Amino acid sequence: MGIGQAVSVLLISLFVWSYHSSEASEERSTYIIHMDNSLMPMAFPSHRHWYASTLTSIKSVSPESSEGRNLGPNLVYTYQNAFHGFSATLSKEELKALKKSPGFLSAYVDGEIIPDTTHTYKFLSLNTASGLWPASEYGKDVIIGVVDSGVWPESPSFRDDGMTEIPARWKGTCQSGQDFNSSLCNKKLIGARYFNQGVVAASPDIKISMNSTRDIFGHGTHVSSIAAGNYVENVSFFGYAPGTARGVAPRARLAAYKVLWDEGSYASDALAGIDQAVADGVDILSISLSYLTIDLYENPIAIAAFGAMEKGILVSVSAGNRGPNFATLLEGIPWAVIVASGTVDRWFAGTSALGNGLTIQGWSTFPARATVRNLPLAYNKTFSACNSTELLADAPSSIIVCVQSDQTAEFNDQMSYISESNVPAAIIISEDTSILRFTDFPHPGVVISPKDADKVIRYASTSSEPTASIQFQQTILGTEPRPAPAVSASSSRGPARAYPGILKPDLMAPGVLILAAYNPYNSVATIGSNIALSSDYIMESGTSMACPHISGIAALLKAAHPDWSPAAIRSAMMTTASTFDNTRKPIKDMGHDYDVATPLDMGAGQVDPNRALDPGLIYDATPQDYVNLICALNFTREQTQTIIRSNYNCSNPSLDLNYPSFIALYDPQPETSTLTQKFRRTVTNVGKGAATYKVKVITPKGSVVTISPKTLVFQNKNEKQSYSLTIRYKTYTEYVINHGSIVWTEEAGKHTVRSPIVVSPAQPS
Amino acid sequence: MGIGQAVSVLLISLFVWSYHSSEASEERSTYIIHMDNSLMPMAFPSHRHWYASTLTSIKSVSPESSEGRNLGPNLVYTYQNAFHGFSATLSKEELKALKKSPGFLSAYVDGEIIPDTTHTYKFLSLNTASGLWPASEYGKDVIIGVVDSGVWPESPSFRDDGMTEIPARWKGTCQSGQDFNSSLCNKKLIGARYFNQGVVAASPDIKISMNSTRDIFGHGTHVSSIAAGNYVENVSFFGYAPGTARGVAPRARLAAYKVLWDEGSYASDALAGIDQAVADGVDILSISLSYLTIDLYENPIAIAAFGAMEKGILVSVSAGNRGPNFATLLEGIPWAVIVASGTVDRWFAGTSALGNGLTIQGWSTFPARATVRNLPLAYNKTFSACNSTELLADAPSSIIVCVQSDQTAEFNDQMSYISESNVPAAIIISEDTSILRFTDFPHPGVVISPKDADKVIRYASTSSEPTASIQFQQTILGTEPRPAPAVSASSSRGPARAYPGILKPDLMAPGVLILAAYNPYNSVATIGSNIALSSDYIMESGTSMACPHISGIAALLKAAHPDWSPAAIRSAMMTTASTFDNTRKPIKDMGHDYDVATPLDMGAGQVDPNRALDPGLIYDATPQDYVNLICALNFTREQTQTIIRSNYNCSNPSLDLNYPSFIALYDPQPETSTLTQKFRRTVTNVGKGAATYKVKVITPKGSVVTISPKTLVFQNKNEKQSYSLTIRYKTYTEYVINHGSIVWTEEAGKHTVRSPIVVSPAQPS
Repeated sequence: MGIGQAVSVLLISLFVWSYHSSEASEERSTYIIHMDNSLMPMAFPSHRHWYASTLTSIKSVSPESSEGRNLGPNLVYTYQNAFHGFSATLSKEELKALKKSPGFLSAYVDGEIIPDTTHTYKFLSLNTASGLWPASEYGKDVIIGVVDSGVWPESPSFRDDGMTEIPARWKGTCQSGQDFNSSLCNKKLIGARYFNQGVVAASPDIKISMNSTRDIFGHGTHVSSIAAGNYVENVSFFGYAPGTARGVAPRARLAAYKVLWDEGSYASDALAGIDQAVADGVDILSISLSYLTIDLYENPIAIAAFGAMEKGILVSVSAGNRGPNFATLLEGIPWAVIVASGTVDRWFAGTSALGNGLTIQGWSTFPARATVRNLPLAYNKTFSACNSTELLADAPSSIIVCVQSDQTAEFNDQMSYISESNVPAAIIISEDTSILRFTDFPHPGVVISPKDADKVIRYASTSSEPTASIQFQQTILGTEPRPAPAVSASSSRGPARAYPGILKPDLMAPGVLILAAYNPYNSVATIGSNIALSSDYIMESGTSMACPHISGIAALLKAAHPDWSPAAIRSAMMTTASTFDNTRKPIKDMGHDYDVATPLDMGAGQVDPNRALDPGLIYDATPQDYVNLICALNFTREQTQTIIRSNYNCSNPSLDLNYPSFIALYDPQPETSTLTQKFRRTVTNVGKGAATYKVKVITPKGSVVTISPKTLVFQNKNEKQSYSLTIRYKTYTEYVINHGSIVWTEEAGKHTVRSPIVVSPAQPS
Repeated sequence: MGIGQAVSVLLISLFVWSYHSSEASEERSTYIIHMDNSLMPMAFPSHRHWYASTLTSIKSVSPESSEGRNLGPNLVYTYQNAFHGFSATLSKEELKALKKSPGFLSAYVDGEIIPDTTHTYKFLSLNTASGLWPASEYGKDVIIGVVDSGVWPESPSFRDDGMTEIPARWKGTCQSGQDFNSSLCNKKLIGARYFNQGVVAASPDIKISMNSTRDIFGHGTHVSSIAAGNYVENVSFFGYAPGTARGVAPRARLAAYKVLWDEGSYASDALAGIDQAVADGVDILSISLSYLTIDLYENPIAIAAFGAMEKGILVSVSAGNRGPNFATLLEGIPWAVIVASGTVDRWFAGTSALGNGLTIQGWSTFPARATVRNLPLAYNKTFSACNSTELLADAPSSIIVCVQSDQTAEFNDQMSYISESNVPAAIIISEDTSILRFTDFPHPGVVISPKDADKVIRYASTSSEPTASIQFQQTILGTEPRPAPAVSASSSRGPARAYPGILKPDLMAPGVLILAAYNPYNSVATIGSNIALSSDYIMESGTSMACPHISGIAALLKAAHPDWSPAAIRSAMMTTASTFDNTRKPIKDMGHDYDVATPLDMGAGQVDPNRALDPGLIYDATPQDYVNLICALNFTREQTQTIIRSNYNCSNPSLDLNYPSFIALYDPQPETSTLTQKFRRTVTNVGKGAATYKVKVITPKGSVVTISPKTLVFQNKNEKQSYSLTIRYKTYTEYVINHGSIVWTEEAGKHTVRSPIVVSPAQPS
């Protein structure tokens, strides 16, 4: 199936949603309408007046409803900062009429957005002695806008100890609302606003359960504290991962824009949040959200991100959690940083000590300090499946050995059966490594690998009185059980459906079992079947958690290099990223049996903040460069203008964006052939002065890469030099991905500037 | 029943134990033998040789056992510091022969000892700004010997940060043993020794499960950290009572003497521990143990305490937990400080918030952060008894209201039925205030009083959709739900069986829900039926926890006043003790429906450390004063010498010990009569110089108290003045207790010197 078909499938899933929405609002839907502001007649004092007048003019087509309710077009939001337009609830007839109005560019139905999910600073080598933290003064005065589910303002992560006065340039406010007094903001949390007119438009009779920026979900609180939480001592997730929590940019400011609601999450609200954030003056936008549409001109996050980028705001967006399959990354916005999720070198263990002296480390996040000391150990094939209450009713009051396999119950079900029995604890043998990410572990127990299982079974079967003890709440750092980072299985993979010609994701950051602040009242773990537990700090996994790491690092880089463009900051992070894990071997992919990860999984690799501070060379891009790309995408004029607005200058369309990565695409065909793609790149010397760089290429298998020139000589700082890269590559009949890299290495200097090269099918099979 | 009968009953319970013991060791028992060392023939190089020779000389009476095992008398310990003698396993024939040996004073069968917790420093007004803490440099260099179940040396409470070098006078050692390396001691924990030859003698084939000073019980660790634990931040009992732990004397030293064993606890071992502590040079002995015999000359703790007192060591002993009945205090050692247990102004709460806005504070120690938010609330008479699994099987998945009464299940059983159901939480209505001391709370819930119950039941019964939330892990300070201190119900009450003529207990100290260090592996709380939890710090209750508070305060006083005798330190604590709670009303007795507590419950009252620093006058006593008392007790010469040894000087027997309290006894008779008792007291001026004191008397009901003189004029510091107190008191036909006090008040000065007066039956009915 080609891209077109894939898009159809996705549009169908969106259609299903809009159908439900239409039911609720009597055949009316909310649409997002893009307008060409340059076409506004002079008579209108503001764009808002013009939009309102436009809507009034189409009202005549609206019939009265059967209940006599006046159902004219209803203006939901006007947007003026990130892009130009408005959202409104319209009938199909009204939409039809609107499309004929002057200045109309495009309209698409409002769709649902979905959210994707602190030792990581250490894993990322951030330190107080040298590098990006001190160079950036920990992100001092940079403002990160987080568009998410709001914020829990009382979380200690948002205290403002150590924060200086709010910069005068800040134009945001602390909006009061339900259970949210405007005095709850401070010098750390400098802004809070909420946007739910889209939710209300979709379901006019809905009652908003928490009508303020207060985060009753927890997701917004979590990502905000990852990006820029203050220092908080003695936090843990029920004893696991104990220590001092801190955001990546502990001295950066936070502004929360709540657009996710228990009652639904709509693009119109997200757009309003981003639009306001741009107006308020944020420096970085952190968006851990996905929108399940593909075309860039109908993707509100992509459109709003363009407007933000134009204003010099770096936009960091999560890749999504639809991996591990090929081309599961939908948006792939070329003017944003798209972040993949990787593991961290921290695991949570329970150690079993057998009566014969053997100790076996296993996985556990049982959320309490269970005492399992010198209890009998029982392995018995009749109950080892641990797959029913009846079976386990006869299990002894011992530590029992359960074997988990495709033929037995799922881990969660086994846990529940064990929990209902009199069994004090279980050792569960499983080869399912995804259990390693579960944080709901409702009964004392550990999960061990089949490799370690033999020792346990042999001892339990041969000893006359086998016993064991289990120690919980263990936090282990390092390379075991798996080297880190590895690409998270669920992280969405490139190439991007929206436009595969730019390699996405761009980067990988920590996104597995990240400890950060949360709504302190939510249930986040269970014991047994009916005891729910909460915690001020919880561990969550997903690209949602990876994204604010990049937002925080971008804030640090912005503080250290206030003159760098969003593209420069992104280039610095990409060309210095690492492709090696903590065993100095290539980063692996959890989603594909720990094979070597490719740039389609992790972009340029794992972000390395200290190296990004001083990248040597950067691949910069201006708003006009992105316009040139968009102009080359075969969009209609209206589609193009929906993104780039009235700054329409398509005189120089080019697909060859000055990007710090390279992707060469092919369509698998019955016959193999050889293709050639030529890229031209310009690098800017951001090192201290004169420098000479020589190129080294690791050629993707089956390809020939030619670089010209092979040496770049810079006399001065900020000097630009260009080179061309030509790749002759073999196509395959099957879906084969090959990758390599080009590295510009400074002579007699420390800088190396690496870009991944990937040869990939363009579309999923 | 008179004292004699009561003694018989207790001896019978002791006999039952020794009978079992005899079975295990083939009709042999361990005896503690007191010897008159002055009668040792010159030929022996040491007492030990003499004792061994004595035992050899009686060996001839021993038959071979049927299995040919040579069963001669077996020397267990020799004792030379706290008293003179030895312990040995003997047959009855051998004992008979031993009694005829020269120098033999007395022998009694080795008997079982039984073990009877940190915001309390604040409750006791200890502070860094003024008073006893700074005056004593926090107990610097005073050594507290704790005779108990050993110590968990790795507990952070025993780290030595901030401790200076160990004083040269210290003669103790850090004995290595199982899982206990001698390097585990440090500048805080300066000594560790263990004594289990008595256990082994009682059961020769026994395997000691932890053959070292390591505390696998936790009791010794707990009491040690109460007395002199170092500062430890961020401790709690599963989120309750969070804060910084610290001992009463955070800079005092600790030496652990392990005499309590999983395999049994014997007086011979306790004696060996005390004997060694005296030799090692401790300043304070903290003994949270009871020995269930009455006669002072057969009570090893009383005997060893005499020897310690002689060497200037203050001995603090727990009153026992056999209350609340009259005369449940057995030992009442006149030369020790006997400590009663009181409550603390800290309670552990769960707050129920009803959907109608009402909030009700209840008791809870559910050991995890349960999330019980906006759940349905159900009250239904059919299941409100919550007394069977079947009944609760039909209970809705709601917060249910359970009513606890005599007719329903016990709290623990109700909890277990609730736990097995699908009920997420319960609100339990109970008037049983003893539940307020339970720390095992295995399912989310709160206990509320019948007074608050109406509001819950009315709301649950009348609202169409009643809901509630419960917040756990709350720690509340102050006067609610009950003023503090109040005498703990279980604290043993005077008069003392051993000798009722000296008012015992002496003092009260915090002993309810005291947070202190523990064996980190022991199960100390449960969730559901089969999940056991452990904690580094736990809350325990009992006189065992009150005793080390007095040990710590005594250590502080010893540091501030190195020249004070044990009697002087005790006097300072007693005459400055408080009889008022934190509502400035008389201290109440939890054991008797919160009636006003009497001196039989709490001695002179709740210890007030800062006032004890500067008591004005003290009632001192020398070893000879105690000898005079013992000589007047109608003991045989051997019984007397068993306690006072060869320093036998009974030339001046007197029951009127110079004690800072007064007790007048009567035997309830069919006819009332009037009795007179005269006391003579000598007080020493320990104020700054000249002072004049005038007496104020609060006369016990039905009594006339005459003091002469009524004014005491001191010209100098350390001057002594004497006075007489005569009480004419009415006897009752029933058991009636009346109490009052005498207070010497300094004219134009701040000192008040208070002694309780109590008129009481001498014996239990």
